[in-house]
Amino acid sequence: MGDMVYFLEDFKPGPLDVYRKKASFSWKEMAVTIENPKMLRFKHSIWKTLSADPLFARSHGDMSFEEYRNITMDRVLKLLDYNLLPEEKMFDDPNLSSAFTIALQQYDGSLAAKRSILIDFFTNAIRGLGTARHYDVLEAAAAGKIFGCVAITEVSHGSNTRGLRTTATYDSTSQNFILNTPDFLAAKCWPGNLGQTATQACVCAKLYTEDGECHGLANLLVPIRDPKTMLPFPGVIISDLGPKIGLNGLDNGLLMFENYSVSRESLLNKTGDVTPDGKFVSPKKFQDPTKRFGASLGNLSAARAGLIPMIAQLMCDALTIAVRYSCIRRQFGHDSEELPVIEYQTQQYRLIPHLAAAYVVKYFGHSIFERYVDFLFKSFSEPDKDTVKMMGTEIHILSSAAKPLASWLARDAVQEARECCGGHGYLKLSGIGTLRNDNDANLTHEGDNHVLIQQTSNWLLNIWTNKSAKSSLGQTPLNALSFLKEHDNISRMKFTAKTITDATNPELILRKYKWLVCKILESTHRKYNSLLHETKNSFTSKNESQIYYAKTLSIVFIEHYILEHFWLKLCNASGLSMDIRRILVKIFSLYGLWSLEKHLTIFYQWGYMNGPEDADLIHASVLHLCKELKEEAVALVDAIAPPDFVLNSVLGTSDGEVYKHLQNALLQTPGVFDRYKNWASISKRLSTASKL
Amino acid sequence: MGDMVYFLEDFKPGPLDVYRKKASFSWKEMAVTIENPKMLRFKHSIWKTLSADPLFARSHGDMSFEEYRNITMDRVLKLLDYNLLPEEKMFDDPNLSSAFTIALQQYDGSLAAKRSILIDFFTNAIRGLGTARHYDVLEAAAAGKIFGCVAITEVSHGSNTRGLRTTATYDSTSQNFILNTPDFLAAKCWPGNLGQTATQACVCAKLYTEDGECHGLANLLVPIRDPKTMLPFPGVIISDLGPKIGLNGLDNGLLMFENYSVSRESLLNKTGDVTPDGKFVSPKKFQDPTKRFGASLGNLSAARAGLIPMIAQLMCDALTIAVRYSCIRRQFGHDSEELPVIEYQTQQYRLIPHLAAAYVVKYFGHSIFERYVDFLFKSFSEPDKDTVKMMGTEIHILSSAAKPLASWLARDAVQEARECCGGHGYLKLSGIGTLRNDNDANLTHEGDNHVLIQQTSNWLLNIWTNKSAKSSLGQTPLNALSFLKEHDNISRMKFTAKTITDATNPELILRKYKWLVCKILESTHRKYNSLLHETKNSFTSKNESQIYYAKTLSIVFIEHYILEHFWLKLCNASGLSMDIRRILVKIFSLYGLWSLEKHLTIFYQWGYMNGPEDADLIHASVLHLCKELKEEAVALVDAIAPPDFVLNSVLGTSDGEVYKHLQNALLQTPGVFDRYKNWASISKRLSTASKL
Repeated sequence: MGDMVYFLEDFKPGPLDVYRKKASFSWKEMAVTIENPKMLRFKHSIWKTLSADPLFARSHGDMSFEEYRNITMDRVLKLLDYNLLPEEKMFDDPNLSSAFTIALQQYDGSLAAKRSILIDFFTNAIRGLGTARHYDVLEAAAAGKIFGCVAITEVSHGSNTRGLRTTATYDSTSQNFILNTPDFLAAKCWPGNLGQTATQACVCAKLYTEDGECHGLANLLVPIRDPKTMLPFPGVIISDLGPKIGLNGLDNGLLMFENYSVSRESLLNKTGDVTPDGKFVSPKKFQDPTKRFGASLGNLSAARAGLIPMIAQLMCDALTIAVRYSCIRRQFGHDSEELPVIEYQTQQYRLIPHLAAAYVVKYFGHSIFERYVDFLFKSFSEPDKDTVKMMGTEIHILSSAAKPLASWLARDAVQEARECCGGHGYLKLSGIGTLRNDNDANLTHEGDNHVLIQQTSNWLLNIWTNKSAKSSLGQTPLNALSFLKEHDNISRMKFTAKTITDATNPELILRKYKWLVCKILESTHRKYNSLLHETKNSFTSKNESQIYYAKTLSIVFIEHYILEHFWLKLCNASGLSMDIRRILVKIFSLYGLWSLEKHLTIFYQWGYMNGPEDADLIHASVLHLCKELKEEAVALVDAIAPPDFVLNSVLGTSDGEVYKHLQNALLQTPGVFDRYKNWASISKRLSTASKL
Repeated sequence: MGDMVYFLEDFKPGPLDVYRKKASFSWKEMAVTIENPKMLRFKHSIWKTLSADPLFARSHGDMSFEEYRNITMDRVLKLLDYNLLPEEKMFDDPNLSSAFTIALQQYDGSLAAKRSILIDFFTNAIRGLGTARHYDVLEAAAAGKIFGCVAITEVSHGSNTRGLRTTATYDSTSQNFILNTPDFLAAKCWPGNLGQTATQACVCAKLYTEDGECHGLANLLVPIRDPKTMLPFPGVIISDLGPKIGLNGLDNGLLMFENYSVSRESLLNKTGDVTPDGKFVSPKKFQDPTKRFGASLGNLSAARAGLIPMIAQLMCDALTIAVRYSCIRRQFGHDSEELPVIEYQTQQYRLIPHLAAAYVVKYFGHSIFERYVDFLFKSFSEPDKDTVKMMGTEIHILSSAAKPLASWLARDAVQEARECCGGHGYLKLSGIGTLRNDNDANLTHEGDNHVLIQQTSNWLLNIWTNKSAKSSLGQTPLNALSFLKEHDNISRMKFTAKTITDATNPELILRKYKWLVCKILESTHRKYNSLLHETKNSFTSKNESQIYYAKTLSIVFIEHYILEHFWLKLCNASGLSMDIRRILVKIFSLYGLWSLEKHLTIFYQWGYMNGPEDADLIHASVLHLCKELKEEAVALVDAIAPPDFVLNSVLGTSDGEVYKHLQNALLQTPGVFDRYKNWASISKRLSTASKL
């Protein structure tokens, strides 16, 4: 153990010791259980570099919009110079690139986004859609010699990508593509880095040949700003999107073209190309435009899989602040000394289930990204292309439900953390507001949650609809639906738990979830078919079977998968100490039961549960687990928390000296004692009556 | 009608007309039904004044922290000069003061808060706790000749006011009180206006006489800054709390005293005084320190009652933005033209129930404030002091549950509105982020929601515990519990609805709610008593019966009260057109059923509901009402929306020209085309490779 966790520093003694001593496990062991030690070590090494560099010094001061923009850009460039993750190291273990992004996000969301857009999104797009003729850009981007962005979404088209209207028309005379934005509605909107700093954009446009034929969407590598002056080239109009709810260090922008010419070679031509004389050609496997469309957006999957562990970590950070603060903050009590607020049932119920969720989702997040990396390797090496393709689909389906689930959970956890910190949580220096504002983007980008989640329910319904046609019901590479073949048995189950021990049994929780998935899959399928019968319109029938049906289906499906995945890991992990295992089982059970609670009505509706005792037992089990885990709560957050320098919260410091840090922050911040700037003008109108 | 609504301007024709024409009622009639026309007219007159004054010009630009502070102060002073609500007019109809604050809040939350602290909180504290010797301050405050704040909360004591530790010790030699802050934990923390601009503070402190006896908490009117210089007086230390999650135009501060002397007359001496020679004296009715404590905090009730309609209106504003935008924004579709997103079941379910909630809570909010005003008048005139006292208690109990309910509903509605507006909702100029950040304070101030709500459950449990002792079970001035005497009959009820018509019947919804309140009251009482039997500790038993019991009890109690109140108004209103009545019944039913849905498990647990059909019918009814009200949605928001100048949202303008406004805002905002400020330094490192 010792050499595995050498990079984790002991905490200074202080008021959190009372709770630290209550913990029944080693937080360091937990830290390297819940996260790959190699990734965690890498994150700590990044943070060490940042903490030693004055450019990365922390502040809670009110940095102006412009200052924040500038420092974020400077920091991205400095990171490129540090070259903390050289390409060869990254290709050796792509999980490190996820660790890098998460480490940066924990430091500052805008910085992580700005760098990711350049180093991950932009270069992945070139790598995935372009060919050798574009690859010199990759090196230039990695060195910060060009600055890139990815321009897909338009003002009036986000979710419905097929509706994009920017055009790229080939002109064989000049051998150029002419880019045009038909109107403001088709302006490229939202690309990060576009607003002020990108010199190149990967632009998604409708491809036209001279004969007027449209060949669907294609992507072009478009120089947009003159790097000598950083002004847009003539024919390119760029404006900055201005202040947003969060992520204000990132310059999102708006982009329009007016008869703007780019070379024929600008076309990212892996899935299709235009010959110099203007003929559209495409490799055999991409001759179907739908496949080209799929390929052109396929690399968004990577972004989505990568987003889940980021969201999970954000949740961990917010809960770290709230849990530590709740162990220090005292209010009321039944004798002379007031009680730490964590001792109240209400506070426990508000925080501990979210903490359990953060653990389970964090584990899943790292894992889904690993799966994605595994898939990428297999897609080059594996001879069985069908299985690889199915694996890609399943990862897409899982992340299409997991990104919404994770971001909603994070939204609620961050908000609860804010409220649990009371008034002081409303101070900017609590750090929770920033986490909330930054997470807010996760609900929408990389696929709007409500739109995205339909991909999962559609897939599930398809599998169910075709069940009679296949003997292999639910056989998929990642086994997300392997229980479906036992559907008949599962559907006959009933609630049997009589004690908290029964109710918190992980196997039984998973069985309940399997019943739930089967039941909602059946009822959604029935609902959809009855609507289809009625309306003869599949579009309408799909839309009218979302609420209470398809949406719930996607959610229970992914809740089950995430839980089962966590449980299998626990069962199969070798070398786990009994202490850690016992705690992780409790975490599993708490997250499982707390999630099940949201669906209790369905259990009652279909007779799985009956009478007052069944739900009461679930409730009592949740409270029981909250109370037990409350004793472990500080060690649980210690295991997932970044160093104080990174967390940057006055309320959440690891030494627990909340009021001392608050005192320093409130009294030593420049300007807090300044006289009101307009004092002279208002003092004139104020009464100068002396003291009463 | 015509002359009643002359101040409501018709909307310009535009893309929202499609939906406006679908409405089956007059939005103007609705506007003056849901809000007192006198109040609404007053609000419009205020907005007219503001819109004509350049000092109040709108901007979405990134005003700096300091600029926002300064302009907010200037605006408060300008408002005092306008004197839009002279004292005599306000005393004639105190509801206008609520209208004033709401109108300002809709314009800018910080401005409303800053003015209210001066004009309402500060002067009410002086009026309520002081005597004639302090009244010259009232006039000076109204004229902006002094600037006040109210200092109660300390760094380590918010909810538990009894724990305050600032001291005021009388010294008969100097005939002064000596104020001291024992340590940083006892620094006054959070008072608005304190940070930079207040010259006087109403300070809550422990009162000591020279003999070392503590006489409990008392309030003093303390000069804190020299109005000539706006610097704190020697012995007074004030710092600014700096940036917060929201309300950054308001200067919250931190205040410490070190042997600071104030005159004997500074003591706000209505409930107790110190004679020049240092003897504590108090009027007969305040000789019990608990009564003095109650009186000293009693005027917080006003703030809380006033907060509910403010929160409701904030919800209305956020939903106005999201509903209008959802009728314009198109995405996907089953034929060539894409569908407005409001046409999707998912979007309807996400928005329309919140809109129904906003209506019901808005009506309740205005009404509870009216009741409060009524109570104030009665407390002077009514001879039956016991009834008046009971009325005061009941208003306190209602608002102690309604403030949490309203602020949680607003939190969720604003968040859903944000998410429903997709990416563009994340722009600052959508206006939703500001609403969210400002509302966030409402969850904590004027009583933390989770602490406050226990007042209501405690009161209910007391009434239930003492039921056998009284024949008058549930008889209270505002009839919040009148149904309790029929408890036995109510408990025997079952779910009988078979059709959507049954399920949406308001009387039946109220009956379900009455069953729910009775059931949870019983089970909370049982839970508490069994814990008490076990632990012999009432403090612990209370704390351990919050989740699933007491907290739910307070919530269902207030949900029922708010619904019943709305229903009685509907039944008793004269002169309501059939159109309006029909819509309001739907709104009632939707909010009622949607709220009931959250408690369905309880209905099943106790056999009120059985089998799949019962819950399915509730769900189907909710979706049915969402779909019906979707047709009315634009008119519904028109009736509760402020003018565009006030709403200040690019997505929510009344003409529905979302993209045109977006175009202007994105392209005509100063700075959006500016070159990156550090361009020269970064262009050096960028590759100057020419266009591909």
